[in-house]
Amino acid sequence: MDEFSIIKKYFMDDYNDSNDTKEVVLGIGDDCALLQQQNDKYIAISTDTFLEGTHFFKGTDPMSIGYKSLAVNLSDLAAMGAKPIGFTLALTIPDSSENFLERFSKGLKFLAKKFNCKLIGGDTTKGNLSITITVFGVVEKGKEFRRSNAKLGDLICVSGPLGGASLEVEERYKNLNLINYSNRSLTDIFNTSKFEQSFCEMLDFPKPRLDIVELLKSLNCKCALDISDGLYGDLQHILESSGKGAFLYLSQIPKSKNFPDITFKNLHNILSGGDDYELLFTLDKASYDNYLLNNKEQSTIYPIGEIIEGSKIFIYKNNKRESEILYSGSGFNHFNS
Amino acid sequence: MDEFSIIKKYFMDDYNDSNDTKEVVLGIGDDCALLQQQNDKYIAISTDTFLEGTHFFKGTDPMSIGYKSLAVNLSDLAAMGAKPIGFTLALTIPDSSENFLERFSKGLKFLAKKFNCKLIGGDTTKGNLSITITVFGVVEKGKEFRRSNAKLGDLICVSGPLGGASLEVEERYKNLNLINYSNRSLTDIFNTSKFEQSFCEMLDFPKPRLDIVELLKSLNCKCALDISDGLYGDLQHILESSGKGAFLYLSQIPKSKNFPDITFKNLHNILSGGDDYELLFTLDKASYDNYLLNNKEQSTIYPIGEIIEGSKIFIYKNNKRESEILYSGSGFNHFNS
Repeated sequence: MDEFSIIKKYFMDDYNDSNDTKEVVLGIGDDCALLQQQNDKYIAISTDTFLEGTHFFKGTDPMSIGYKSLAVNLSDLAAMGAKPIGFTLALTIPDSSENFLERFSKGLKFLAKKFNCKLIGGDTTKGNLSITITVFGVVEKGKEFRRSNAKLGDLICVSGPLGGASLEVEERYKNLNLINYSNRSLTDIFNTSKFEQSFCEMLDFPKPRLDIVELLKSLNCKCALDISDGLYGDLQHILESSGKGAFLYLSQIPKSKNFPDITFKNLHNILSGGDDYELLFTLDKASYDNYLLNNKEQSTIYPIGEIIEGSKIFIYKNNKRESEILYSGSGFNHFNS
Repeated sequence: MDEFSIIKKYFMDDYNDSNDTKEVVLGIGDDCALLQQQNDKYIAISTDTFLEGTHFFKGTDPMSIGYKSLAVNLSDLAAMGAKPIGFTLALTIPDSSENFLERFSKGLKFLAKKFNCKLIGGDTTKGNLSITITVFGVVEKGKEFRRSNAKLGDLICVSGPLGGASLEVEERYKNLNLINYSNRSLTDIFNTSKFEQSFCEMLDFPKPRLDIVELLKSLNCKCALDISDGLYGDLQHILESSGKGAFLYLSQIPKSKNFPDITFKNLHNILSGGDDYELLFTLDKASYDNYLLNNKEQSTIYPIGEIIEGSKIFIYKNNKRESEILYSGSGFNHFNS
């Protein structure tokens, strides 16, 4: 099957032909895709490679590979406060196995449709399995979430539980127990709360937190990133860009229902496990207090610390700055197991 | 060396920090890059993967790999009539060999600077050598060159000689004679006319024809693509998109100084060899005549045929429709050796 046949058969779909995203003027089929521009917005762009043996275990269900290769890119858009419009797919595959392409495209298209993100360009090549996606979004000027925007006194917040995906990675290294999701519906997977999800599904089907972008903007959020490398290292990116320090309360970090009690052994999963794809963001206290007043049953914003002067991170065990200090410093590799 | 160190050391440069391209609001270092938008323009986007063993021979001088991986993408922008603004680089390499990265980035940065195209995002991964570049440009609305815009009676033109790179590919398959360009200056390579160039340099350092985009726009050009798969197949893309046929005069197709006399054996290099990266475009006759009047010594526009009704391609040996018909039909694979 030649390149265009593969793209047409597996990756183009009704959603791709519709005219409901006015931003895509010209999609696949010419030398370039063309995107509409609007003076009051920026185009946000991110690219990620997803390589067998590095980013996923050999033998992973292709439905997860397709889903996750787009999910991690959409997560970068969420972290910037941008709405998805389209993506390009550079797919390198050893052969054009129908089964692989069927399941890979099923996972990919599920997310693409869910977030109305159109395939606007592609390139297929024969070789070791590797996927590079470049994703495009739009964000109103001045509304983007930059890493450099954390302010003194801001609350540091996360959008959901951490550590589960990382526990699953360790489990798979010990005992390569790969799941085939043939009998599981993507909609069910997607709609399960991260607090209820199995660690397998947390790892294989991370949810890009585009669902809370508008809420964060309404709370005047200016600073965010997505936790892909682990809370500690990713918080460091914010602190370095913003020229600030932070303290964190370990007891405040949300964990999923199945996550065991925190011990020295699993602390690193929470703090530097990675693959969480929750958002890490800062809010000024007044905005958060106002939010709490109107949302007694809040379940998407978890304050876990505060932006302070300096450049260090202090981690306290309990919900007080007088409690036991677990760690203070500025080295990233400390928590890597 | 970690990802950001590699990108910073080898790929970021003065040109990347300058503020002279107003389109790039935010480059490398956040979750996404941000591009400025303007209501009167489109963003043009293209992506290409460049894989060892498929797109270049193992052992190719990394300076060529870096140069060409960006060149083929810039060529797509030229084919759309767009001005480059930036690109993302997804680089998969077996190890972070200093020598490879030095020479690869030298080739890449040479072109990036030449066309003021900034690196705005990147991802490095360990694995078999593979490069995926996604490139961004801007084009004034209504001025873009679409494949579907060929009109009845338009002249079919190319921008330079064809077939040389393809002869070199055949030569390398027979006798793997890879060139190390350590003693050759990129500026000299770039400034040598395609008519004077060695076939090696034609293959390893194709020149994206961004230099003639403004000229073509001034001649009211509406339809173009770049010849990457070979004249015959790429012309077919135009004809299929535009619902037209064509005739071509073989004797009118420009060849470089070193290209041998056309025989049955090398005809396919001219017609379907590929890797030419010259532009194939159509012009209405009045615009071309007007151009000729003012440019007696023209050397960038070579009319080689005409758009006709139907869907077939007729190839005549000499400069007349009454001369010997070499081929007529609509099958692409005919000329593939």
